[in-house]
Amino acid sequence: MANNPLAPSAAFVTSVKSIVAQEVVDTAAIQQLDTAHYMHPFTDHKALGEKGARVMVRGDGIYLWDSEGKKIVDGMSGLWCVNVGYGRHSISQAVYQQMETLPFYNSFFNTTNVPAVKLATKLAEIAPAGLNHVFFTGSGSEGNDTNVRMVRRYWDVLGHKDKHTIISRHNAYHGSTMAGASLGGMEGMHAQGGLPIPGIVHIGQPNYLESGRGMTEDEFGIEAASWLEKKILEVGVEKVAAFIGEPVQGAGGVIIPPKTYWPEIQRICDKYGILLIADEVICGFGRLGTWFASELFGIKPDLITFAKGVTSGYVPLGGVLVGDRVAKVLIEQGGEFNHGFTYSGHPVACAAALENIRIIEDEELVQRVANETGPYLNKRFAELADHPLVGYANSCGFVAGLNLVRKKAAVVHDHEAFDEALAVGMVCRGYMFNNGMIMRAVGDRMIIAPPLVMTTAQIDEMIALIRHCLDLTYADVQKRGWV
Amino acid sequence: MANNPLAPSAAFVTSVKSIVAQEVVDTAAIQQLDTAHYMHPFTDHKALGEKGARVMVRGDGIYLWDSEGKKIVDGMSGLWCVNVGYGRHSISQAVYQQMETLPFYNSFFNTTNVPAVKLATKLAEIAPAGLNHVFFTGSGSEGNDTNVRMVRRYWDVLGHKDKHTIISRHNAYHGSTMAGASLGGMEGMHAQGGLPIPGIVHIGQPNYLESGRGMTEDEFGIEAASWLEKKILEVGVEKVAAFIGEPVQGAGGVIIPPKTYWPEIQRICDKYGILLIADEVICGFGRLGTWFASELFGIKPDLITFAKGVTSGYVPLGGVLVGDRVAKVLIEQGGEFNHGFTYSGHPVACAAALENIRIIEDEELVQRVANETGPYLNKRFAELADHPLVGYANSCGFVAGLNLVRKKAAVVHDHEAFDEALAVGMVCRGYMFNNGMIMRAVGDRMIIAPPLVMTTAQIDEMIALIRHCLDLTYADVQKRGWV
Repeated sequence: MANNPLAPSAAFVTSVKSIVAQEVVDTAAIQQLDTAHYMHPFTDHKALGEKGARVMVRGDGIYLWDSEGKKIVDGMSGLWCVNVGYGRHSISQAVYQQMETLPFYNSFFNTTNVPAVKLATKLAEIAPAGLNHVFFTGSGSEGNDTNVRMVRRYWDVLGHKDKHTIISRHNAYHGSTMAGASLGGMEGMHAQGGLPIPGIVHIGQPNYLESGRGMTEDEFGIEAASWLEKKILEVGVEKVAAFIGEPVQGAGGVIIPPKTYWPEIQRICDKYGILLIADEVICGFGRLGTWFASELFGIKPDLITFAKGVTSGYVPLGGVLVGDRVAKVLIEQGGEFNHGFTYSGHPVACAAALENIRIIEDEELVQRVANETGPYLNKRFAELADHPLVGYANSCGFVAGLNLVRKKAAVVHDHEAFDEALAVGMVCRGYMFNNGMIMRAVGDRMIIAPPLVMTTAQIDEMIALIRHCLDLTYADVQKRGWV
Repeated sequence: MANNPLAPSAAFVTSVKSIVAQEVVDTAAIQQLDTAHYMHPFTDHKALGEKGARVMVRGDGIYLWDSEGKKIVDGMSGLWCVNVGYGRHSISQAVYQQMETLPFYNSFFNTTNVPAVKLATKLAEIAPAGLNHVFFTGSGSEGNDTNVRMVRRYWDVLGHKDKHTIISRHNAYHGSTMAGASLGGMEGMHAQGGLPIPGIVHIGQPNYLESGRGMTEDEFGIEAASWLEKKILEVGVEKVAAFIGEPVQGAGGVIIPPKTYWPEIQRICDKYGILLIADEVICGFGRLGTWFASELFGIKPDLITFAKGVTSGYVPLGGVLVGDRVAKVLIEQGGEFNHGFTYSGHPVACAAALENIRIIEDEELVQRVANETGPYLNKRFAELADHPLVGYANSCGFVAGLNLVRKKAAVVHDHEAFDEALAVGMVCRGYMFNNGMIMRAVGDRMIIAPPLVMTTAQIDEMIALIRHCLDLTYADVQKRGWV
């Protein structure tokens, strides 16, 4: 941290680094305990137990090292979150200092703490105009869960007790709490645990490849937005509280909407007076070359969900940026809003976020993604479309995706897909992981979301790795007779 | 941390301490920004904005200091969580070291990290027998939300697709997500945001004062447990997935059940084969003089929710201890459980938890609460019953509560209560807060849950403070003519 009188000495930092680098991890022993005791998120444990988990032990910049000493390019920023990269000493130091001062206090009972107030103030400053309040949670899931309660409470206070329905989209991801997973449109999640909860309905996603046949992208954007209007009329506007969407769908496969989509969604929300929620858990904090994607897409959401990039994942934190329209009603007419979490406004998490944001500002990471590295990634990533396996490759800021196809055609909608059962995406992911490149598979779409600190030289390094692994995948599927 | 080669030097720690102690906070400026930007949990912001929040700036041991330099005895351990007290340098150091090593990595995609595995292993070691797996979340709310999905998934996998109903209790607190708040039995929460979600039903709480008239405590315990059996039969056992309860209800007002209650609940769960979930977010990690309250009350839950005390609140963390019955089905027959969080198994949070648990073990805090300070608190707290305002004072380990009454009678059920509208509890809380004692009010029941490091001398200090504030409250209500 700049000018921090509490920073550990350079000698101390160096000694930690050298000891950390020498740490020996017994992979087999950790894997055995992992199988015996740790239930991972979204995992088939029987299958995992048979092969053993990869043990990640160290990170620095855009690189990770596993317990076998293998160096890996982290093309996913952890899980869409390590925006400033690994190994940021100043965040460790800011956290240390806060823990020595006040490691925890709650914000119930008319009490507050300095980092929470400073962070709320800072977020209001960097957020789009009109979003001046912050409700802190511990994660993006809790943020979206909060949105459900908050938009319903807003309409209740205004006397519209039936205006409780939230419209979301198929294949959306809004977290894993019961309400978050219900807002999300993931069929696999809805199939487990009695989801979705009532009062949440879904429309189609603006996935041009999937549903845009015969239209230009711009035409399709207007078409996909019109599904919102149809759904509002079907449900009845007197029952619709809000629409929620990720500006670019992340876990759904980096679905980048046509540029006509969001302005039309905004127009429809305005026309019917329903609230607009932008889930920027992935898109926020510079990921698309703007502080928030809402700026990029020209929308003015009433609520913005955030998490991940707010601390670059260094300490768990999430929340909701609350626009004036909602805040005014809740504060002036709502009385007590019976909602919140023990860790809401956690001083250590907020201290980590403040230092993380300072780094993003100081190193001009948002501008770099907008003007330099983002356009460069876009250019280099698009070049992958010449690969025989790649039918479509696009990007937006620092998220990108490409589709593995069996046979290419002149028009993207005519590309021939692989049989889903072959799970070619997983085959490709395997080659990526085994060759030091983390690239995620969503069906046969391969996606990345690299740390914002990635340089143009590192982009070259990553693209070369991806191409190499695509070659390996192609050789494999040829050998198997799948192409 | 003992023998930690990465520990900062003593000189560094001292310099941080002295700088922290000298930090000047501009209270009015922070309050102004607080009002302008920070939406607190469970708060009436209009009312708060008019008076301004208290700014908590520093903690050490059982004490807090606010921005005006006022020293405060934290009778609530932050929010039931700072079990090892404030100012634990070794936790700051463990966190610093982990952040320098690997500040984040996810556990999706067959990957793991060392602190998560070590913590899962340690939790399985200290948990009651048969609870050998851990599903990490970011909070207790997410833990209980996970329970809903997990118990339903368990029954689904076994082919009982209708066995989705969970039985909870009125006035229970299980968090603030949609599912957590639905499991909870707080009327004020259910009134906002369209709660509860379907498939959750409630029975009465084992509140002897409220419902035990004409019975001994033991008789009432059996009676209150019988409500579970009645509800199972009413819903139909083929539809009931699980029962959930806090061993001692916390936010509901430290409701300590008769000792007959939990064994009878266990018998009924066993009789009907339904799962038992113990929400030990408050009761776990030594709070009641056992690692988990389930040991104290002689029950063998299938799932235990944890959070708070697992890190003493220093870094957000929560989760579910999963017993063999559920884990075996999910792992061996369940395939992928489509659930989890970005911050599940967060390496920094897990590192904080490991050091926190090491402190609890090293300082024998569980044993101290069981054998020394717990019994002493029990004795000293019970003495408060001689105060003219106090109708009932009881404790269990390091939670305690007393009831403010208008007029005492020979039998507790005949005490005359104050008119609810007078909010005497809030009056009393005001005197506590203003005189350096944090004691929470739940209606007219005043409750505490002090840090487990509190010594017998500090218990004396706290009891004297409480008595002084009870005197001030009594003088006030006399003056107002309320007694």
